Amino acid sequence: MASSKVRVLAINASPRKYGNTFKLLKVAAEAAEREGGEVELIQLYDYDIKPCIGCLSDIQVACRYPCVLEDDGRELIEKVHRSDALIIATPIYWYGPSGHLKNLIDRITCLENMIFIDGRSWAEGKAAGFIAVGADSGNISAIAHLMVVLNSMGFIIPPWALAYYIGSEDALNRHESISDAANVGALVVRVAKLVKGISEWYNPKLIDELGGDEFIKSIRDEVEKIKVAEFRKREGLITKLMRESR
Amino acid sequence: MASSKVRVLAINASPRKYGNTFKLLKVAAEAAEREGGEVELIQLYDYDIKPCIGCLSDIQVACRYPCVLEDDGRELIEKVHRSDALIIATPIYWYGPSGHLKNLIDRITCLENMIFIDGRSWAEGKAAGFIAVGADSGNISAIAHLMVVLNSMGFIIPPWALAYYIGSEDALNRHESISDAANVGALVVRVAKLVKGISEWYNPKLIDELGGDEFIKSIRDEVEKIKVAEFRKREGLITKLMRESR
Amino acid sequence: MASSKVRVLAINASPRKYGNTFKLLKVAAEAAEREGGEVELIQLYDYDIKPCIGCLSDIQVACRYPCVLEDDGRELIEKVHRSDALIIATPIYWYGPSGHLKNLIDRITCLENMIFIDGRSWAEGKAAGFIAVGADSGNISAIAHLMVVLNSMGFIIPPWALAYYIGSEDALNRHESISDAANVGALVVRVAKLVKGISEWYNPKLIDELGGDEFIKSIRDEVEKIKVAEFRKREGLITKLMRESR
Amino acid sequence: MASSKVRVLAINASPRKYGNTFKLLKVAAEAAEREGGEVELIQLYDYDIKPCIGCLSDIQVACRYPCVLEDDGRELIEKVHRSDALIIATPIYWYGPSGHLKNLIDRITCLENMIFIDGRSWAEGKAAGFIAVGADSGNISAIAHLMVVLNSMGFIIPPWALAYYIGSEDALNRHESISDAANVGALVVRVAKLVKGISEWYNPKLIDELGGDEFIKSIRDEVEKIKVAEFRKREGLITKLMRESR
Repeated sequence: MASSKVRVLAINASPRKYGNTFKLLKVAAEAAEREGGEVELIQLYDYDIKPCIGCLSDIQVACRYPCVLEDDGRELIEKVHRSDALIIATPIYWYGPSGHLKNLIDRITCLENMIFIDGRSWAEGKAAGFIAVGADSGNISAIAHLMVVLNSMGFIIPPWALAYYIGSEDALNRHESISDAANVGALVVRVAKLVKGISEWYNPKLIDELGGDEFIKSIRDEVEKIKVAEFRKREGLITKLMRESR
Repeated sequence: MASSKVRVLAINASPRKYGNTFKLLKVAAEAAEREGGEVELIQLYDYDIKPCIGCLSDIQVACRYPCVLEDDGRELIEKVHRSDALIIATPIYWYGPSGHLKNLIDRITCLENMIFIDGRSWAEGKAAGFIAVGADSGNISAIAHLMVVLNSMGFIIPPWALAYYIGSEDALNRHESISDAANVGALVVRVAKLVKGISEWYNPKLIDELGGDEFIKSIRDEVEKIKVAEFRKREGLITKLMRESR
Repeated sequence: MASSKVRVLAINASPRKYGNTFKLLKVAAEAAEREGGEVELIQLYDYDIKPCIGCLSDIQVACRYPCVLEDDGRELIEKVHRSDALIIATPIYWYGPSGHLKNLIDRITCLENMIFIDGRSWAEGKAAGFIAVGADSGNISAIAHLMVVLNSMGFIIPPWALAYYIGSEDALNRHESISDAANVGALVVRVAKLVKGISEWYNPKLIDELGGDEFIKSIRDEVEKIKVAEFRKREGLITKLMRESR
Repeated sequence: MASSKVRVLAINASPRKYGNTFKLLKVAAEAAEREGGEVELIQLYDYDIKPCIGCLSDIQVACRYPCVLEDDGRELIEKVHRSDALIIATPIYWYGPSGHLKNLIDRITCLENMIFIDGRSWAEGKAAGFIAVGADSGNISAIAHLMVVLNSMGFIIPPWALAYYIGSEDALNRHESISDAANVGALVVRVAKLVKGISEWYNPKLIDELGGDEFIKSIRDEVEKIKVAEFRKREGLITKLMRESR
């Protein structure tokens, strides 16, 4: 297991297959390879991705791998499933990812929703890094969105998992951007290696293991003690508030 | 002009044409009609919307109305163009709008980008309200995103322009949600009426009208005076900082 | 009433009273005055603002104007209360407003929470515009946050209500930034004038006026019809989903 | 080294020291201890934290550990500095962290800004998890903000690093919330253990190690080839665009 390679899926979510988004992704991909990753780089606009139809809102367990929609999205979801790490590079379209990428994100739900079928998210424990490129603004909005979404699916986010370039020049001339992008590539591989072999993260029985109802009760008791003490301290204030709030 | 109706485009961005997103949108649409709006309600999933191909990154003025992509998106963009107000209702997919809606937003760029061709955004001065519905979380993330995007295109945002429902029950049973949704509908019409007939908002010559270079110089002078005074006050601190930062 | 002036509160939320944040705010303030606004510009760091203590979580109606905390925050809240429009200029600290500004925002809750005491938010119908300045990134994150928050309190957001500068030069040299800032100032005044005299926006009785339960029932019936038709269309899919989800 | 304990700083950023925010934090803290962490839980409102004065905007290297402001914030920054992991629990104040917490975040800049003095961020490689609690909405907005900020300082974000409770009941009764909170506690410790001993993450020389200018040139050449091929494919479109854009 230790010798097994880390598989990295690098996604260019820009329609421009030669633009700044792609350039920074390419830098990240090279750095990932040098770190020992086995990188597959895809041009997202080569794939036809239909929008998610929200099956799970009708039947929770209907959303499962493989997705019911039969299009190129399926192949992409399988690529995500097989990977140990993702590097997602998006153009900044109105302060967010391109709609095309959002459609893929929505569709990946079928991996995460395996929680309800298999007991755990099939995205759990993968590493993810992010690159955002645009002419003006919104890089952090776009990346914050992607980061919290993937973390909510179970991805681990390495330190410094973000790189960006804002402007209309050649991003390859901007040292900070290429250095950050290279580090995104290297760090997702380093972290993916560190966690490779760990098959379980979220422990659904953790509350039971901590003592279940007894555990919760002990916390409730402790909180109650603090509450009494605090209320006493805040007594003057509370009385004042109550008087005024009549 | 005063008697002309306010045209409202109400968009259901959920694939479920009968779900909670649609229900709250319907409430908003009825309230908009009662307020005097002429409402067209569309099911976004009835339209095939290709993802934006980012022409403007190659040639700024290439992105213009009508969009170069020949699909149902064109018809939708025309509907947006003809409307005085939008009510956008989205399911919350991973804390944001559905990818399908994001694709429409990305494509509407061709209205906003008329700035570079016509001198002004063709989205300017329209009113917009927002509805977000989901089983769990992310309503504010989704709405904040849509709000800042549309405002950046020139839309005006009425007071209380947001409504949402989080949960798996029938949203029509939740009084706060339906009341908020109805108000979104009524308020976009009220505000659209107020601003109807105003054809210009952003004034590209405002700096010149304020005095141009002279104006900027006067501000610079005033700032300089404050800076001197402030630096004196912060002298001890600044000296300390400089000493420590050697 | 028509002749009464529009009062604008312009807030510099940067500790640097002479920096780029202040400069753009000053541009906006001058433009606001020229548009007929009566502008008061304050340096937020001249005020001591204690953090909100969350009274409403203990007793909903305890959070009310004036705020229970006796510090400079009270004076600021009063200034907000008396104003018709706000222009908030913030330095971008970690992709958001400065903590000092956030403390003020949190404290303004006592105006919004008058909903529960007075039946309506005391922030309702005021106009708001936003300026964000920083060395690197996060302008949209910061502004989106402020925009959705103030709209949730009842503020109206004029078209183009945002301006920003990212960089380390003199913002007064960047034409786009100063032009945007001036327009923020002018547009909050224009919109504040348009809505001046309107004392009620949110209509808590709107659902009743639309027909109450009858109204909701009619929507429910309509949705039910669509649902039946849609389910029939999706029958193959639904059957497949149900089969697979066993 | 393997036997050394993982130090966890658990921060309750709510003024209510007995409320739902604290309860979920307490659950996380207990789970962290069981996982082997040495937890210190602090009540943030016991500390006086002055707002950041933005020294680095005047002099980049002036912002350094220890922070120039002499208040309780210093002690807190030191606690963060000494910790291997953070669990931040915040009440949701207007869709974001409390202003009090934001002030601490702003002040922690002096650890991250050591990049410019020491060559690396003193926050690098620490683990972080997040808990957000509120009566209504904005949990994801608040957490997404904290997550992208801490990652930008160099923190690693474990899988499932978020927990929340929305509502007005006792959060201890909501199984999903306490289970998620316990997992946040356990997972920050697991990840902090995994990375303990790794002293360097961001590699500022990575571009050089990848080949420097030669490396960038090879990427530029490769991109150029793709560009030529793509432009040929898009020739009809590009011609059309150029014709229309005259």
